[in-house]
Amino acid sequence: MTFIEKLNAAWTSRNSLLCVGLDPDLKKFPAELQGKPDAIFEFCRAIIDATAEAACAFKPQIAYFAALGAEEQLERICAYLRSNYPDIPLVLDAKRGDIGATAEQYAREAFERYDADVVTVSPYMGWDSVSPYLEWKDRGVIVLCRTSNAGGSDLQFLEVDGKPLYQHVARLVAEKWNTNGQCGLVVGATFPQELAQVRAIIGDMPLLVPGVGAQGGDVQATVTAGKTAAGTGMMINSSRAILYATPQAGEDFAAAARRVAIETRDAINRFR
Amino acid sequence: MTFIEKLNAAWTSRNSLLCVGLDPDLKKFPAELQGKPDAIFEFCRAIIDATAEAACAFKPQIAYFAALGAEEQLERICAYLRSNYPDIPLVLDAKRGDIGATAEQYAREAFERYDADVVTVSPYMGWDSVSPYLEWKDRGVIVLCRTSNAGGSDLQFLEVDGKPLYQHVARLVAEKWNTNGQCGLVVGATFPQELAQVRAIIGDMPLLVPGVGAQGGDVQATVTAGKTAAGTGMMINSSRAILYATPQAGEDFAAAARRVAIETRDAINRFR
Repeated sequence: MTFIEKLNAAWTSRNSLLCVGLDPDLKKFPAELQGKPDAIFEFCRAIIDATAEAACAFKPQIAYFAALGAEEQLERICAYLRSNYPDIPLVLDAKRGDIGATAEQYAREAFERYDADVVTVSPYMGWDSVSPYLEWKDRGVIVLCRTSNAGGSDLQFLEVDGKPLYQHVARLVAEKWNTNGQCGLVVGATFPQELAQVRAIIGDMPLLVPGVGAQGGDVQATVTAGKTAAGTGMMINSSRAILYATPQAGEDFAAAARRVAIETRDAINRFR
Repeated sequence: MTFIEKLNAAWTSRNSLLCVGLDPDLKKFPAELQGKPDAIFEFCRAIIDATAEAACAFKPQIAYFAALGAEEQLERICAYLRSNYPDIPLVLDAKRGDIGATAEQYAREAFERYDADVVTVSPYMGWDSVSPYLEWKDRGVIVLCRTSNAGGSDLQFLEVDGKPLYQHVARLVAEKWNTNGQCGLVVGATFPQELAQVRAIIGDMPLLVPGVGAQGGDVQATVTAGKTAAGTGMMINSSRAILYATPQAGEDFAAAARRVAIETRDAINRFR
């Protein structure tokens, strides 16, 4: 089963477009996990078990593991996901981008070591920095297009032939790089109008949409702008708002995460 | 001492513009190291000791370590460099690029965990994806500008206001991001004319120049195009041509690496 088939199946079977981002930040961990040697793994496992019913994808952000030297815990988290939720796509958020020989190494990192279904990559170095990932025919790449941060405009909004650069990236990926149906794009929820413009360019290609939740993107505007005719086509990511949900009285962190994940899934589904 | 001060001192004291890239590829290792548990560390340590007299910088490429789950060996290599060659800048080649909160994690990876002097980053996500690194006032970033691979043209050559995108990146970094003298740029040796155009834009900012050696860039054209008035301003990188130098009769891999490093340093110095 390819990445795209798996994602399509997950959208349907789980009735969800919500991607749960795993950004483990020790400072924000509950007291019961503080100081434990496996705290990152235990935290992520609890979040995964609590939110899987509401998720179409999980997305570990590798930077949080790399900063702490916790790659071994990331390996265990990915193995846990593959064993216990084999139907849910695993997105490795790494935003890699390098020449071909180096990209081959990063592809091994993503697809062999962590066994991810899909990895985020940067388009800045062009086709031969992306093609090595596509040699893995059942896996995919999600290419940065229009990002949700303020500085995203610095390059992505530069005008090329009367259109902003990010639209050229969308066209390049849709028309040239996606020959085998393995590509998606990152487009932030903070810019619904641009999301709609990208959707008009790329047909049914999947989008990873960060920026809902802690980053403040509007759910209705996001879903309306980015969905396909089938009411899918998006992995709408929320990380911090789910991972560090303020607990209600008597609620533990996993229960709070579950509540917010279900609320977010349902809020998204209202506008599909 | 800041990164730039350290690099300036290394250019002078070592009389070299050569950056030795550390891309450890197990398949190419000498027979004596095959199968050893610490093979990567031992290989890199031998290369470092053999080539340090000819190097102004060392540049481990993190992808080669990440593919093999060998971060612990990279930590030891970086610690070895800092202890034994504290005057030689350590460039972590990682080409990271992500939103601010995530960039903070990558900065910790580069500057705390590996204690690098400088890290390569991608400009695609703009200012707030780069600024967290610059909070480390004695460290630096080297921003991708014009890369040495064929696909580099896909985005970097798109025309913005009559100029290719990479020149906008050069101007953006030189005029806006380099307020504290912490930035450099990556410009490939495969395009000497473009190297000269970038040098004209950025003044004396340092360049990391890959593409000499295995990638085929011409040394004379590269040095002539990229040097500053002082005859420095560049870390000219060679990785594979040094690491996997074909041994002459009776020569081991480290001696061969030393010979090629010295030849490359001297070839560069002839045109400074």
